[in-house]
Order: sequence, then C-alpha cells, then structure tokens
Amino acid sequence: MNQDYIQPDQWSIIEEGFSKEMVKSSESLFSIGNGAMGQRANFEEQYSGPTFQGSYIGGVYYPDKTRVGWWKNGYPEYFAKVLNAPNWIGVDVFINGDPLDLNTCKKVEDFRRELNMKEGWYQRSFKATLPSDIQVNIKATRFLSLDIDEVGAIEYQVTSVDADIDVKFVPYLDSGITNEDSNWDDKFWNTTNVISEGNQAFIESHTMKTNFAICTFMQSQLMYKGETVEQNPSETKKELWVGHGYSQKVGKGETVTLHKFGGYTVSLNHKPEGLVQAAKAVLKKASDLGFEALLNQQKKAWAQIWEMSDIAIEGDIKAQQGIRFNIFQLNQTYLGTDSRLNIGPKGFTGEKYGGSTYWDTEAYCLPFYMATKDQQVARKLLKYRYNHLEKAIENAAKLGFSNGAALYPMVTMNGEECHNEWEITFEEIHRNGAIAFAIYNYYRFTGDYSYIPEMGLEVLIGISRFWQQRATFSKQKNKYVILGVTGPNEYENNVNNNFYTNYLSRWCINYTLEELQKVKEGFKEDYDRIVGVTKLTDAETDAWKNVADNMYFPFSEEEDIYLQQDGFLDKELITVADLPKSQRPINQKWSWDRILRSPYIKQADTLQGFYVFESDFTNEEHQRHFDFYEPFTVHESSLSPCVHCILAAKLNRMEQAYQFYLRTSRLDLDDYNKEVEEGLHITSMAGTWMSIVEGFGGMRVIDDKLSFTPRIPEQWKAYSFKVNFRHCILKVTINASEVKFELEGDDDVAVLVNSERVAITPSKTVTVKIK
Amino acid sequence: MNQDYIQPDQWSIIEEGFSKEMVKSSESLFSIGNGAMGQRANFEEQYSGPTFQGSYIGGVYYPDKTRVGWWKNGYPEYFAKVLNAPNWIGVDVFINGDPLDLNTCKKVEDFRRELNMKEGWYQRSFKATLPSDIQVNIKATRFLSLDIDEVGAIEYQVTSVDADIDVKFVPYLDSGITNEDSNWDDKFWNTTNVISEGNQAFIESHTMKTNFAICTFMQSQLMYKGETVEQNPSETKKELWVGHGYSQKVGKGETVTLHKFGGYTVSLNHKPEGLVQAAKAVLKKASDLGFEALLNQQKKAWAQIWEMSDIAIEGDIKAQQGIRFNIFQLNQTYLGTDSRLNIGPKGFTGEKYGGSTYWDTEAYCLPFYMATKDQQVARKLLKYRYNHLEKAIENAAKLGFSNGAALYPMVTMNGEECHNEWEITFEEIHRNGAIAFAIYNYYRFTGDYSYIPEMGLEVLIGISRFWQQRATFSKQKNKYVILGVTGPNEYENNVNNNFYTNYLSRWCINYTLEELQKVKEGFKEDYDRIVGVTKLTDAETDAWKNVADNMYFPFSEEEDIYLQQDGFLDKELITVADLPKSQRPINQKWSWDRILRSPYIKQADTLQGFYVFESDFTNEEHQRHFDFYEPFTVHESSLSPCVHCILAAKLNRMEQAYQFYLRTSRLDLDDYNKEVEEGLHITSMAGTWMSIVEGFGGMRVIDDKLSFTPRIPEQWKAYSFKVNFRHCILKVTINASEVKFELEGDDDVAVLVNSERVAITPSKTVTVKIK
Repeated sequence: MNQDYIQPDQWSIIEEGFSKEMVKSSESLFSIGNGAMGQRANFEEQYSGPTFQGSYIGGVYYPDKTRVGWWKNGYPEYFAKVLNAPNWIGVDVFINGDPLDLNTCKKVEDFRRELNMKEGWYQRSFKATLPSDIQVNIKATRFLSLDIDEVGAIEYQVTSVDADIDVKFVPYLDSGITNEDSNWDDKFWNTTNVISEGNQAFIESHTMKTNFAICTFMQSQLMYKGETVEQNPSETKKELWVGHGYSQKVGKGETVTLHKFGGYTVSLNHKPEGLVQAAKAVLKKASDLGFEALLNQQKKAWAQIWEMSDIAIEGDIKAQQGIRFNIFQLNQTYLGTDSRLNIGPKGFTGEKYGGSTYWDTEAYCLPFYMATKDQQVARKLLKYRYNHLEKAIENAAKLGFSNGAALYPMVTMNGEECHNEWEITFEEIHRNGAIAFAIYNYYRFTGDYSYIPEMGLEVLIGISRFWQQRATFSKQKNKYVILGVTGPNEYENNVNNNFYTNYLSRWCINYTLEELQKVKEGFKEDYDRIVGVTKLTDAETDAWKNVADNMYFPFSEEEDIYLQQDGFLDKELITVADLPKSQRPINQKWSWDRILRSPYIKQADTLQGFYVFESDFTNEEHQRHFDFYEPFTVHESSLSPCVHCILAAKLNRMEQAYQFYLRTSRLDLDDYNKEVEEGLHITSMAGTWMSIVEGFGGMRVIDDKLSFTPRIPEQWKAYSFKVNFRHCILKVTINASEVKFELEGDDDVAVLVNSERVAITPSKTVTVKIK
Repeated sequence: MNQDYIQPDQWSIIEEGFSKEMVKSSESLFSIGNGAMGQRANFEEQYSGPTFQGSYIGGVYYPDKTRVGWWKNGYPEYFAKVLNAPNWIGVDVFINGDPLDLNTCKKVEDFRRELNMKEGWYQRSFKATLPSDIQVNIKATRFLSLDIDEVGAIEYQVTSVDADIDVKFVPYLDSGITNEDSNWDDKFWNTTNVISEGNQAFIESHTMKTNFAICTFMQSQLMYKGETVEQNPSETKKELWVGHGYSQKVGKGETVTLHKFGGYTVSLNHKPEGLVQAAKAVLKKASDLGFEALLNQQKKAWAQIWEMSDIAIEGDIKAQQGIRFNIFQLNQTYLGTDSRLNIGPKGFTGEKYGGSTYWDTEAYCLPFYMATKDQQVARKLLKYRYNHLEKAIENAAKLGFSNGAALYPMVTMNGEECHNEWEITFEEIHRNGAIAFAIYNYYRFTGDYSYIPEMGLEVLIGISRFWQQRATFSKQKNKYVILGVTGPNEYENNVNNNFYTNYLSRWCINYTLEELQKVKEGFKEDYDRIVGVTKLTDAETDAWKNVADNMYFPFSEEEDIYLQQDGFLDKELITVADLPKSQRPINQKWSWDRILRSPYIKQADTLQGFYVFESDFTNEEHQRHFDFYEPFTVHESSLSPCVHCILAAKLNRMEQAYQFYLRTSRLDLDDYNKEVEEGLHITSMAGTWMSIVEGFGGMRVIDDKLSFTPRIPEQWKAYSFKVNFRHCILKVTINASEVKFELEGDDDVAVLVNSERVAITPSKTVTVKIK
C-alpha cells in the first residue's frame, strides 16, 4: 500500500515527481480507454527503463495453446489472451540529434502526470536535462476519442529552455510488438502491409489463428509558434515499422508541437479489404476537426457520462477521488455500445486474467450499468451470454453433461472456456447461478420482461438442466448434495455442499420453473418455440423440482449458522485479527494446502449468498452470519470488501463499512494488493459503486419501487448519486440528517425511505428527514 | 490391451513380424539396463519412422524450470527430469552406399526381437529388402554389462543373401540429443570435446545447471568370415557427433560383423578431468575380453541373479513370463550397489514421471529387494531417504512447518520436491508414512536394528513432527482431524480425514515413540546425539502422543466400515460393474470433477491400510471392507491390482486373486493401460512379486519367523520362490496339496505354515501337507 503516491484531487489522478520504480504502476493507473480500445500510459517517446507496453482493442484476442503442468480431461485446448496490439502512440523525439529518453536524462524535474477524469484526457509534463545538458520542457497530452472511437489524439510539445535547438519528431507505427503473457512464445500478429503516404501511414496486420484483421494508422502535423508547418516528412519503412521524420529549429523559449492522430480500424466493424480506406476516412474526420475541437468533443462526451453517473462526496477528498476513479475506469472499459464486448477484470489496462469475461460482469458490474446507463446497455450484457449459450452447452457436454445442460465458462472471450485450473474451471460452477440471477436482477430493476421470453428463458433452462444433473442424491442424507465444488471463496477447493452454491442452484431451478410458467401463460408463441428448441418435458421439470425441493444445506445447530461447506467447523477457527501480520497476505505467505485447510475466506462466500438473497433471511440471521464469517475473511480478492461494506452498512456498522469502502474504492490508487503494475481491478470498481448506492444509500428494489435506507459515514458531510430507474432519473443526496430527491422527466415516482412511501414529483426537491 | 503381441515364452520376450506402429511399444518392452544405465530398444541403424529415443544414466538428471499454468506458493522452482543421454549405440549401415532404414525398406521379413531374460541380452534379426532390391539378413545383439557397468556391447551382423555387396558400418556417438519432455525447450547438455583416436571415440559433455560431466565413448572392430579385419576407419567429426567408417566387400551368403563397445564414464564416479582416461580403461577391459567373453560373463551374472530371485510357475506360461519379466526389469533398474540411486517408476525405459523416486520404493519395492538380495541393498534404499532428511525438512519448511518437521517429496531426484500439482505435492502426504513404515518393515524382516539408532530414528522424528503439526484439533469432534489431503486414491483430492492417512499418521507417531524408548534404553550414545541434534523435548513428544491418542477416523455405523474419507457415503454408489464399459478408463473418458465426485477408486486406499496394517483388523473386518471398496475400484493405477490380489488371496478368493495377478504381472506385456510406448511400470512390478509371495504364498513375518498361508491358483500346477530371510535362504515350492521347503546354509530355521510351527534343516526337503 502506498498512500502518498497519488495526490488527492476531486477530479484528477495526479502523480508528481519522476520515479523509475513507479513507471509500471503509473502506466496502469493513468490508462485511458474509450470502450472500443484502450491503452496503458506508456510514454510516447522512447524509454529504455522497465515498462509494460500495452494497447488493446476490444474483442481482439488470440487463442494461445494451453500449457499446463498436468493435463486433465475437459481442459480447453486454447486459452484466449488479451492481445497487445500494434503501437500507434510512439513519437521518438530527438534534440540536436540525441534521443529523449527519461531513463538516460541527467535530470527530470517538475514531472507531473494528470489523468483528468472529468474531461477524459491524460497529460504528462516535465523538464528534462539531456546527457548533452540541453534542457527542454515537455508537455504531452493524449486521449482516446469517445465520439470517434477508432481514433486517439496526441499533442506533443517541446519547449527549449535556454538555447536554440534542433527538434526532430519521429511519429511511428510498430507492429513488432509482443505480449507479456504467452504460453508458447508464438507469434500473435502477422503483418501484411506497411504503407506510407505523405503525412499518413498504415500497417495492415491480422492475428494468427483468429484472423482479426486490423489497420493501425497515423497522421501527423507539425506546428511552430502556433502556426502549422507544412513539411513533407522523411520516411523510414521497415518490415513491421514505419516512421515519419519532422524537423524544426526551435528558438530559446519557443515551443514546437506535434499533433498525431492514430488508432485502429478492425475487421469486427469493417470489411478486411477496406480497412485502410476506413482508416483514411477516420483520419479525415479527426484531422478536419483538429486536436482542439476533438478534445472539446471529448470534454462534452465525458460531461454527459458524468451527468448521469457521477457520485459526489462532500468532506472526504480521498473517498471522492476513489469513487470517481472507479466510475471513470468502468466507463473507459465498457460503454454498452457493442454486445460482442464485455468487461474484463483488467479492462484495457493489462493482460492478466487472459480472457475477458468472468462472473464479475453479472455479479458486480450489471447493477452499475443498469443504474447509470440506458437499460439497453444492461440488456446487451445479458445478450452476450445468450449469444454464448450454444458454447456453454458444448462446454457442459465436454464435462459429461447432456441434454442441453449449459455450463458457462469461468473465463471467456468468445463463449469458450479459457481457464485451466481444474478446481476453478470444472468446479467453480456458481458462476452459472450468477448468470441466471442477472436475468432476474435485470427484470427486477428495469421492468423489461421482454428479455425473458425472447432470450433469457433458454439460458435459464440450460442452467437448470446443469444444476439438476450436477446434484447427487445422497442416500445417507436423503437429500440432494452438490459435491466437489469451489465457491466464491477460492481459498477452498473441491468442497462438498458449499452453502452459496447449493442455495443458488435451488434458486435457479425455482426461478426457471416460475418463469416457464409465466412465459407459458403470457407468451405462448415464445413458449412453444422454446419448448420446441429445448425439447423440455414435464418429467424433466419434475426432476428439477425434486432436486430443488430436497436440496441439502450444511447447518450447525450449535452455532445456529449455515456452514460455508461440509466440515467447516473442523477447522482451527483462529480469526484474522489473531493471525500475525507477518503471515499476510496469506496468498503470498502460505502454501496452497495451508490456505485450504485454514478457515480464511478470500472473498465473501456464505455472506455473498446473504447479500444476493438478502430478503430470505432475518436481520438476526444476517447479523449472526456476518459476525461468524467476517472475522475469518481476509479480503484477498478485490471483489470482497464491497460486499462486506454493504452488509456492514445494513447492520449499521458504519465505521467498519467505511473502512471497507476505502479498501474497495482506493484498491488500485493506494495499491493495497501490491500489484497495480499488472493493471487495474476494473470489475471490482463496480462493487465500489454498489458500496455507496446499495451500502450507504441502502438502495434496493422492493415491489417495483426503489427503496432507500440512507446512512452516511461520519467522515462525510454529504453524498449524492443518480439512478436511472425505469426511465426515471432520480438524484439522491444524503447527509446525516436528511435525504433529498430530485427527479428528471415528466412522471411522478414513489420511493420508499426506511420503508415509508415518499412521492416525488419532477423538478421539485423532496427532502425526507432521517434523523 | 493387446494379448497377442508378445509371444508366450518361459524365459524370453519375443516379438515376431515388423510393425511400424509397434516400434515405440517394443522400444519400451525390450529395454535393457544394468542398474547403472539403461536404454530403450532403439535401433542401432538409422530409422526414419516414429521412435522414442532414450538412453539414461542413473543419477544424471536436469532441473528443468517448472512450468505450470497457475503458480502456487511452495511449488518447487525446478522439476528434475530424467535425462536422455548422448547416444552411443548408433551404427549406420550402408549397403552399396544406400542406408539401411527399416522405414524405407521394400520388405522386412522374419523380423524377430528377443529379450533373453535368463541371460540378459537383446537381439533383433530380420531379412531386409532395400529400395535397391538388395537383400540382407541382419542380426544385432546388444547387452549392458552387469560386470563392467559402464559398458555395453553390440554385435551387428550383415549377411548378404544373393549378391556380392559393399557394406559400410558407421558406428558413431551423438550428443545432439533431446528430451521428449522439457518445459522450456532448454538445452540440457553442453558438449565440450569431441575426440577421435583410431578405432575409439569420445564425446565429453556435461549437463547444464547440475553439471554432471560424462564421457560417452565407443570402440569398434570389424570381422569378416570369422576373422578380425584390421582397418583404419575413416573419420567424421561434427560439433556434437563423431563417426567411424568401416567398409567391407561381402560375398553372397557371407557375413560381416561389427563389434562395438560403448557407454559412459560419469563424474559421479570419476574426477571430471579423468573421464576420457577412465573410458579408455573401461574400453581396454571390455575389448581385451571381447564380445563373446563379455557376453559369457553377462550370462553368469544373470544366472546368479536368477538363482536367488527367480519365481518358477508350472502350468501357466503367460503367468510365468509375466513374473520373470517383472523380476528381470526390477533387476535391470536397481541392483542396490549405489545408495545415491533409487527406483524410478519408469526405470530406464522412458521419461515419464520426470523425477526418479516415489513412495513406490518404500511401499512396493522394498519387500522384493529385502527378500531377494542381501539386506545391505534394502538398507541402501533406506539410507537414500536418510541422506535426504535435510531436504525433507527444507521442503516442510517451505510449506510452513517448523522445528525440523520433515515432509519427504512426492517425486525426487536429489531430495528436492519436483512435482507440482498442488493436490499431489502439497496434499498427498501419506508418502511420509510409507517412508516411516519402511523402517519398521526393514527391521521386521531383516532383524537389523542398527539402522534405527544410526539413522532411522532421526527420520522418524522428522516425520512425526510433521504429522503432529499437520493435524488440526477439531473442537466439534473433540478429536484431531487431518484436513485437505489426497490419499493413495488420487481420484479424490483435498479430502478431510482420509482413513489411510489418519491411520498411518497415528501409527507413525506411536512407532516413533516406541523406538525413541528403545533407543533410549539400548543405545544411549545414539539417543543423546539424536536428542542433541533434534532438540527433542518431552513436551513435544507429549504433544505427538496427544495427537495419536485422539486421532479421528471416519466410520459408518450403518455400514460398519471405516470410510475412505469424510462424506464418502454422500456419493452415488454405483459399482464399477454397473458402469458402462464405454465410460472406462474413467481417466480417459471423464473430466476431473466428475472423477472426483464419483465413488471410483484409482488404487487401493482404505484397503491399502488394511494391507499394511493387516493384523490390526479381524478377518471379518477385512472381508467387509474388501467387499465394500473393491466394487468401486477401477485399478487405473499400476499399483492397485497387486494389493487387491494379496487381499483377495487372503480371503481365499483365488479366481479373483488370479485375475488381479494377471493384470499386475502382464500390465506392460499386454499393455492394459494403452501406454506402454511411454515406458514400463517398473515399481508396480515389485507388486507382482508381492502378489505371489505375500498373496498366494501368504508369506508374513510373525514373531521373527516367516509364516506362510500357502494357496495356489487353480490354473497353476505349482510355483516356487526363494526368500533371503535374515541370511537364511529358503526355497518354497507350493502345489495344491503341499508346500515344500529347502534351506541353504548351515543353520536350522523354523517357519509357520498355516500357523503351525515347522522346523527346517539345511539340505533336507521338508514337505508340509496343506490339503
């Protein structure tokens, strides 16, 4: 944890001072993205120090052949990889012929990075003393356009401090890039064409195996003393590289500027043979506007996003910075414009976790996108899984399930499983339940039932088939048991009767049966189609029901709690508080067997069930289970603190909830897990949003109404958020004594505040006392 | 399974007819070894078809950097690899300038391989029609000398069938070899010197990282019409290769012969700088003797081995061939002359299982070596583990154990763990018990107590420390439990309270406490030294005792059996007999999770405990547990059928026992598991020996006496075996009605037959009626 590295600020992430050790961490933290592509905050100019280069295109991946120590039947043959794409941001800078390289400069002063979240741009400025003792001031600004999402723009400025100098910019494209992570050191990209035309250049390449074709492009323009300099650049072409040289004599105190537009056109969106042409069209659009105008559009676009999704916190700048960073990164990663895309745990900020989509999307990200975007965005996330249903059925078949049972992959790019630890791939099956619950959650929140007859019900049937087949009837218990699973707490593997998994599986079956009935009654045509496609019979649904009705749940009479799994009480129950600090994080200090036989919980597991199925349990049950499990939870997953924050807030343990809030919101900014250089924890950022809205705000949907149980950490004066609930946009502002509602639109709406009905009218502020 | 591939024969393994598909399998089955080195039955002449090249030197390994999909703390950084060594057997053969290559010959007739187990040589003969239509008869004989264990000899004969021809032999050495199995495609060997001197050649090379230096050498001699041909060979030297050309005009019907001696001198046994000189000395010794005399020595040496270790079976040639093949391979692999060596599961016949030593050595091989060799051999096997005690303590420390607790590795070459599936490496800890039990077993059989105060007790202390720390006190059960283990049945992972493991751990502690007392009373000096070194206190041994006295064992009152582990009865208990054949072997047909939640047992687990601790249980208990567990056992480990054979014989279920016997004894010959091309299952071969001696012969040690409960499969007329029990060599011959004892040496001995005392005098045959 590094509390002082990032400067507190309401709207920006700021680093001051240059430290070579922090370069990789900052490359993660200052990452930019526009939903379609993204990149780590790598320097434009050359840098010979340690760096982790990354530029990523949504939906472009590579199926690396799986390499594991010991093969198990059912493992996927390929492991999809987030793919480092050709570099378009490069601008080599030469001062009097010497390269500018922060690793070799004699001095770097006034180094500052700013990621302006409000306006969506990233800037780096510093004064460098080159080995030749020449001093220059540099300011480099970069953004990826939200409006034209195939293009990014760079403004690179060099100011001579105290001499007349020669400055040469060499903006370039480079497809000779590699991945940090690869199983077999295969070549991922094949470059077919390197084109240079005046101030434009293009590299055509495609991924091996998956054959995604892309054109990486650039166009540059030199300016001096505020005036455009018309110059035919010198041209260098290599097999995988093309660069343009722009030279300028720069007087003492004067500034030379390079504007570079660049980006990718991709065969996902264009015909492969038309990628260069598409790139030229994009470049024309961007350059006709120019850097300033494009940046202004960017500011407007981000203003629109913030208008709906901002959460303002008064009185706690670090908490404020944290939530805005989380909201900003989520929007950089996924904007809901493309149902082929999804939300990778590292977004566009690193390669870790290879594949893109985890259950994180359904369990953590969906509520954020439902509440802060049009409901079509959430529907797209659901449709993504519907589109993968066939592959989920294939995946289950590989594992020996039949009759259309569906097991969604733990990790995927294209619907195929691409993870290969057996205890995860084969056993962490609760993910299937999260996908079913998301369908319920979507309808509960948006009221859009149409998804269920159109698509959702087929998904539910596949999932329920899986659960029924996966359960085992125990003669001894005279109940159905689910053997050999890994729950959300991955610090337990291959356990029997994980409470969360068993509970979720029962829920899935019962919910599917309910929806089958509803669709049968209300959407006869869809029902007939679905029964036709799935060949569902009454005998089969009876079998499901039998499993659901007779599901076993491990329970301790003595402790009066549900057990995380069979045998949990045999463990040595020493709380985390009594564990020496030197032993933590246990995932770095302990061997796997020791972790497994310990009682320590990586992330909410039984409590995840209490969070998801909150209303099934009494307050006393909540309290008892929280008190039992929280002391054993080490929160070594980024997905854990948010759930505990919400549950602590529900139990009115506000100081504890606040600490969990800080941990989830500033996980990356303060690098709690000492790994931010690998990339950001994008999906858990949605958990931060839930911590405020569901945790402190106590927002739930009850009987088709929004309900609030407002609370506030004592460190805060007030906080506010907006929610798009069924096309009503409600702004909620909470302080210690009251909650204020403001409604956009034309229709009245009723909400519940601490179970009391409150009517709200558009354009009037309604204030409710809560103390 | 391929029942007809190997021809039945009393003393030889015979293949008739050439099949390219069988080349790799035969390379395994016809492997030769002399305890110090060994090699697959690769062809001498070039072969362009699929082949698995392998020549291995005992104790020479390479630490390949571990590569796993997902790293866990505690994994070993290196994975020791059985190393393919430079090739010295190569003899390229040219007929009228054309290479002889069985893959390109127009016809191969009368192809025959014979592995003569009685005499210890391997021969291949065939008639080849080359693409040129020239026909030659080939006979190639090869053996690795038992007497001079650094050398092997080849006699390669070419007879022209129907024309005068030019024959050229190019015997060569080649260090440009690779491993089939490598993690990172690293280079394993570094060659430093290639020497050619007259008819001798030498290649000096050393392994990377481990720096084992070896000299690979050869010397050749041409003969024609029975006369030595003096010829200066032509010489070809490359960076990693040296060959000598010998040419001879061969008349129709005449035979030209090449004798080649070759082998390795190794820095394990010589100074690295003296390897070439040592090689020259070996070559002089071998060539002074000549091929015939060396082969005669070989026959004598094998006769000596057979004299002690043969098991003769009358009336069942396949059973006879099976047991001799097993005994032969064991002796090819390990002769007990070097306590740095051990018995790898694949011996010198393949690379699989990377490291060399498993618990197989103690649990399966020790009884064979104790009974058929001088007791020093068994003691060497024990000393091997004593030598590795420090590394076992380091290994335990890496996993979080302290205070000198020792966890022996699952797989090792040099004492370091070199396996990396967490469920095995970290959890298959019963191996530690097998190593303790071997100490007891050694003393029980040999009566040599001296090992215990000298070395064994320290090993026992390390092991008991581990068990005490590894147990967890369950408040709920008010007992000690052992959580998160994998038992011998590897089709269960991370289970709680594996009966076998818990039982063994209790035994280990109690046995250690007993031996501590005995050493304290009888070997004060050793005791003081050991207490000094280990810093053992009474408080600590009290803690051990507490764990042993309060160990938990899962038990079902209803079934009246010990459960393999907690929760076993929750499984769907469908017997193997009711499992469709199409589903087997389950390790090839099912995904890992499905295997894990099934009741199917890969190899004896609870029953392994009943085998090891036989006398702790009544006959009824034996029967009940066998009847419960056997029907769920799939025997997909080579180590399973032998234990079931012994238990079935004990229960007098002789037909079942006989079927198990065939399965264990002909596992490789009949390729039950369809994998013989990867190498042979050496360690389970000792289980075959146990099946006859302990199973059918019912041999046990009871009160310092050998005890027999003789039985015979009805397919056999009679069988006999010899046992070296405390320096008395007893030959036991059993038929359906009587057992006959013959004793070598000077002293009388008493044995038990069906619990009756029988006195035996040297040089008199004692016959006991058993029916």
